[in-house]
Amino acid sequence: MTEQKPILPGATIGILGGGQLGRMLALAAAQMGFKTHIYCPDTQSPAFDVTPHKTVADYDDEKALKRFAETVDIITYEFENVPVATAEFLEAIVPVAPGPRALAVSQDRIAEKRFLTMNAIPVTPYRVINSLADLQTGMKEIGVPAVLKTTRMGYDGKGQRTIKTPADGIAAFSALGSEQLVLEAFVPFEREISVIVARNARGQVRDFDPSENHHKNHILKTSTVPADIDQITARQASRMAQQIVGALDYVGVMGVELFVVPGKKRPDLLVNEIAPRVHNSGHWTQSVCVTDQFEQHIRAICNWYLGDPSRMADVVMENLIGTDIAKVPESLKSGMSAFVYGKADIRPGRKMGHINAIVRNEETN
Amino acid sequence: MTEQKPILPGATIGILGGGQLGRMLALAAAQMGFKTHIYCPDTQSPAFDVTPHKTVADYDDEKALKRFAETVDIITYEFENVPVATAEFLEAIVPVAPGPRALAVSQDRIAEKRFLTMNAIPVTPYRVINSLADLQTGMKEIGVPAVLKTTRMGYDGKGQRTIKTPADGIAAFSALGSEQLVLEAFVPFEREISVIVARNARGQVRDFDPSENHHKNHILKTSTVPADIDQITARQASRMAQQIVGALDYVGVMGVELFVVPGKKRPDLLVNEIAPRVHNSGHWTQSVCVTDQFEQHIRAICNWYLGDPSRMADVVMENLIGTDIAKVPESLKSGMSAFVYGKADIRPGRKMGHINAIVRNEETN
Repeated sequence: MTEQKPILPGATIGILGGGQLGRMLALAAAQMGFKTHIYCPDTQSPAFDVTPHKTVADYDDEKALKRFAETVDIITYEFENVPVATAEFLEAIVPVAPGPRALAVSQDRIAEKRFLTMNAIPVTPYRVINSLADLQTGMKEIGVPAVLKTTRMGYDGKGQRTIKTPADGIAAFSALGSEQLVLEAFVPFEREISVIVARNARGQVRDFDPSENHHKNHILKTSTVPADIDQITARQASRMAQQIVGALDYVGVMGVELFVVPGKKRPDLLVNEIAPRVHNSGHWTQSVCVTDQFEQHIRAICNWYLGDPSRMADVVMENLIGTDIAKVPESLKSGMSAFVYGKADIRPGRKMGHINAIVRNEETN
Repeated sequence: MTEQKPILPGATIGILGGGQLGRMLALAAAQMGFKTHIYCPDTQSPAFDVTPHKTVADYDDEKALKRFAETVDIITYEFENVPVATAEFLEAIVPVAPGPRALAVSQDRIAEKRFLTMNAIPVTPYRVINSLADLQTGMKEIGVPAVLKTTRMGYDGKGQRTIKTPADGIAAFSALGSEQLVLEAFVPFEREISVIVARNARGQVRDFDPSENHHKNHILKTSTVPADIDQITARQASRMAQQIVGALDYVGVMGVELFVVPGKKRPDLLVNEIAPRVHNSGHWTQSVCVTDQFEQHIRAICNWYLGDPSRMADVVMENLIGTDIAKVPESLKSGMSAFVYGKADIRPGRKMGHINAIVRNEETN
């Protein structure tokens, strides 16, 4: 891997997934001189608006996948639920980055926690739940409140239930119980932060400043940078993120979500989850970093030198959910930029765009 | 105009011209949620790679222009040599910004100088040349060295000759003399700067810091910001740019090129030329401004509030001309970003891309 040559402008980058992350990846790739080809089963994909090259087909359509792989120089993806079999099928034809191993680990909460624990990265206490008996033992050992989650395909609060009493546990189990589950201790965290980290095949690693994330109805609402944490905690978060991408021999951008919990001398950090892709909590980088997370991902997967992730101003990223999108353009003043995803329908809970609002520090600029 | 409603995301922006400026405008528009449609006669247009909507047709093909105008919500352009008749034809169907008047003024060096002079904006001394006799009188009055230029269609040193002796004048006249010409005094300038300024239909005006521009073989090679000028001169350049867009009732981004010449107490400024479009000397804004010139142009023509043009770091933009493009990616280190235009053929003198290199001031950030 380390001797892999850089992929040059003019090459075509294939992207699995046509949502806003695929769209913003395609835009970044185009700025760098790449052509892009979007593969997505949804005919209304927002990313189809930013390239003339698309495939509308399912992720298990081997004929379409083969054709797609044969017309691109490298493949990446915008979401961690790309079937591992799909990634492996494609990788037999053309490089896929991040590799299938990162997908396999991050698609399964239990595999992810085991991987992190093996690499001495602290995670929330958890128990694997295969039966009601497992759950009852788990609740005793971990205590309540706790959170019961499906091990696969959960996002934005989907596939999880908060358990406040043992009786809640039984109800949650019957609601979710058709799949393998994991019971996670409820962590009394001070705040949630994330680190967006990148690694290329040369082994270069760069990470952006941690952001502090606030959710509303289980959906990310704001990311604020700098996070309200001390420098030692920030450096520790950075080290953990760097260690994770190193341990996975990872290529691309990864989002690492962490809980900041009260510790003895200073706060402790627990990794909540990792996402092998550009991440919603990294959108602030578009407005205040020389290289944003999308350019960084393309640089990483094409084995270019990574860009400077340093931050030139303080910033708040606000997600525009559902009808929030009506804020654009009239609420958009100087010092704000709007990123709108081009989705045809406004639906409650749907991410329609985001606004980056810059907090300029006049004294230091 | 001032009551014009903003154009909302989801609308389609038509762009005349499919070169790198059209491409970067389309990318900015897409980030803001607009669809784009590129109109260009050249089948190999770089901008065709960043949208599924294109028209390949000549600028005087009224059938194609009509179809194009009917499928878009507003039209803008990437180059000042769009025929005024084309802009007027389109404007009868759908808004065109900047308007045809800005095109008419900037397409003709004499109209431009008269407009500027009428608005008390100092320009290089010049004479209108319709005959060899005009030229001989002109050379006497203005002196040599001087520069003889076609009034129309000149760019990157094309359509102009430097005159060092009266004999040169005759040779230059016979080389260029089939068209109306203008004789410009040779200005012993200290440096060349430019100001990128934006105005929307609400009358808001914002300008970016002046850049200092260096040319090689008459083609822009670097833009450096900040320019090596004192603050009073910088403010004066800003005022002149703001005055020009106001006087034209202009909507969009404009590039204003100025000569800094030795003055009595401090340097004087002369406007060299204006370009009613995003400008090569404004590409540095992509890396160090919250809102870059491309987003600003789209905000302006869609009558959104203008974005913050302030600069978060020092920067040098270097054009990659011809084989310079081979610098990407291996010469691209941290703190640099490459913008590659996706042109199929490398040709001498052809702008293939640019690199923004950030000069970080660690003390103040």
